[in-house]
Amino acid sequence: MLFVFAVVSGFTSNDPRFTPDNELIRPTNYREWIFLSSGLSMSYGIQPHMADKPEFDNVFVEPSAYKAFLATGKWPDKTMFILEIRFAETHGSINKSGYFQRDIVAIEAEVKDESRFKEKWAYVDFSPAGKLHDTAKPFAGDSACNVCHAKNAAVENTFVQFYPTLLEIAQAKHTLR
Amino acid sequence: MLFVFAVVSGFTSNDPRFTPDNELIRPTNYREWIFLSSGLSMSYGIQPHMADKPEFDNVFVEPSAYKAFLATGKWPDKTMFILEIRFAETHGSINKSGYFQRDIVAIEAEVKDESRFKEKWAYVDFSPAGKLHDTAKPFAGDSACNVCHAKNAAVENTFVQFYPTLLEIAQAKHTLR
Repeated sequence: MLFVFAVVSGFTSNDPRFTPDNELIRPTNYREWIFLSSGLSMSYGIQPHMADKPEFDNVFVEPSAYKAFLATGKWPDKTMFILEIRFAETHGSINKSGYFQRDIVAIEAEVKDESRFKEKWAYVDFSPAGKLHDTAKPFAGDSACNVCHAKNAAVENTFVQFYPTLLEIAQAKHTLR
Repeated sequence: MLFVFAVVSGFTSNDPRFTPDNELIRPTNYREWIFLSSGLSMSYGIQPHMADKPEFDNVFVEPSAYKAFLATGKWPDKTMFILEIRFAETHGSINKSGYFQRDIVAIEAEVKDESRFKEKWAYVDFSPAGKLHDTAKPFAGDSACNVCHAKNAAVENTFVQFYPTLLEIAQAKHTLR
């Protein structure tokens, strides 16, 4: 049964993969990972950006990391998150108000790799200037992403405060900062 | 390998289960199913309900049905969807505008069972009057849910027009109505 477990949980196949020049390879199967939450036009600044062009953000985490988090309230090495940003639309089909999701705006990643990154966590934008790339170089360790996640995230560098099912786990396991 | 495949895809374990008096048993693992999309305060009526109490709706489908849809653009018998509705909040942690997800408001299901339901598809609300139940009786075949889904959904009785990744599949497989 060990083999079966390895196949199911994907411990090997879903680990972050890097090119020889240290670019993260964009995972193509993340829509089959575990969904954590969606937000609409969330903004951490004073200036809202809701009115002009609303966007959804969908957050997914690799399944074996999710299972580890359920058991421990912490993230194992090689954890990977994908942030998928999509245009929000109001008028379409029978929908008359509120918002539903349309085309992709951007795909970004957060990766925990303790041996590769001094800060343990790194951030990648696969879609700079609106074009989707297959690989991308992680931001430097003092990037705005690193600084904000390290300062404000609820569990290690991850915004568990915005993922309702994980927030319950972290509270139960006492792993909230 | 057949046994392994059955374990992975969950063909048996995730089929809709009913009590002896024909109530659908609420699946408890749906957050580990395939996420299709989220909307915010979507409304099909003239009257918007966004302003007073915004809500997110998250849609999940059982993984083996999802895999079948990727291959065919159609839903196999025993397909089950879960609609999870959650309160939307603006001010919390570092968020200053836009919306993120909080506690559950309601959990509903859509089930395809060709032998059990004359209309093939049935609709269930596990949370009438705001209380979450472990089982619930499907609505009658002429319910508002049945009528609206049968009339307006893009693929069979399902609102694929609001699920961007599935919409591409249905377009490619020519299964849109």
